[in-house]
Amino acid sequence: MARLIEELKKLPGVGNKSAQRLAFHILRSSEDDATLLADAVRDVKAKLRLCSICNNITDIDPCIYCSNPTRNPQMICVVEEPTNISSIEKTRNFNGMYHVLHGTLSPLHGVGPEHLRINNLLKRVAGGQVEEVILATNPTVEGEATANYLSKLLKAENVRVTRIATGVPVGSDIEYADEVTMQKAMEGRREL
Amino acid sequence: MARLIEELKKLPGVGNKSAQRLAFHILRSSEDDATLLADAVRDVKAKLRLCSICNNITDIDPCIYCSNPTRNPQMICVVEEPTNISSIEKTRNFNGMYHVLHGTLSPLHGVGPEHLRINNLLKRVAGGQVEEVILATNPTVEGEATANYLSKLLKAENVRVTRIATGVPVGSDIEYADEVTMQKAMEGRREL
Repeated sequence: MARLIEELKKLPGVGNKSAQRLAFHILRSSEDDATLLADAVRDVKAKLRLCSICNNITDIDPCIYCSNPTRNPQMICVVEEPTNISSIEKTRNFNGMYHVLHGTLSPLHGVGPEHLRINNLLKRVAGGQVEEVILATNPTVEGEATANYLSKLLKAENVRVTRIATGVPVGSDIEYADEVTMQKAMEGRREL
Repeated sequence: MARLIEELKKLPGVGNKSAQRLAFHILRSSEDDATLLADAVRDVKAKLRLCSICNNITDIDPCIYCSNPTRNPQMICVVEEPTNISSIEKTRNFNGMYHVLHGTLSPLHGVGPEHLRINNLLKRVAGGQVEEVILATNPTVEGEATANYLSKLLKAENVRVTRIATGVPVGSDIEYADEVTMQKAMEGRREL
């Protein structure tokens, strides 16, 4: 019991009290449930890996997006984290490939280009099959800096580089938009 | 006292209880404060009017934007309500003129084009001095419908018609963007 509590305490946001509560819950649950949890914890490390093409978290390599022959290999959408892929998939409007950076440039936190998965992005583009790279990093300071950095590298490869639109969210009121967003919405206006 | 309570109850969101509380507050306040409030209420109707050019609420006609010779008369930014002007002014990035529609097309609520201040917008554009009209109505269903309607009318006048960008707000995470906003952000991507 003490060993389980010690291990649970290593999880983020789980202190001594929470670890005890979780441990007693597991003790009281059925043997099946305990085994399912134990197997799930073991398998997540044993079976999940990064896709060798796009760095997405996957149990098969290449991942379901990279191995799907109906997707368009001429477009690559670059995102910060694997979870961002689902945000873009939900739009049901993008049928290209993905590339996960696993982070953003952040000099203050000591994250430089060498810590991001940039090299295999450049290799994919250098193949010559890619026509457009959409930079879908977050519209934050770090996300913009990363997009600008990638943009310079990618343009040297003679590929079209685009950035997702920043502006007022759909269904919102411009009254609630902050100044910077409103400025971006004005600057990014498009011809009708 | 009963008369004051009756009048206060006509204000939106003020019921019987609130009206009584407000009335007693006024009764207890100094005579100066009561006079200031009374004058402010009278003056708002007596002195404020709509600008004869842009329909903004103003105490001088033309309003401070329309009568400012340093502003660029070749650009008109069309907004739904007078309050939206301050949202755009805060960006300190737009130096053109404004045009306030005082509402949006909303067939369900019986608001048709004849209820909006569209005619004097068309007259301003027909003068030939205007080069670009920025449609800054909200990115809501009504706002988009109004923008599309105006776009058709304005294009007949041979003027450049643009729409403010919809997308992920600055500083936000694409994980928190709803599907429609994310779709618009992808569609509205721009070349870097």
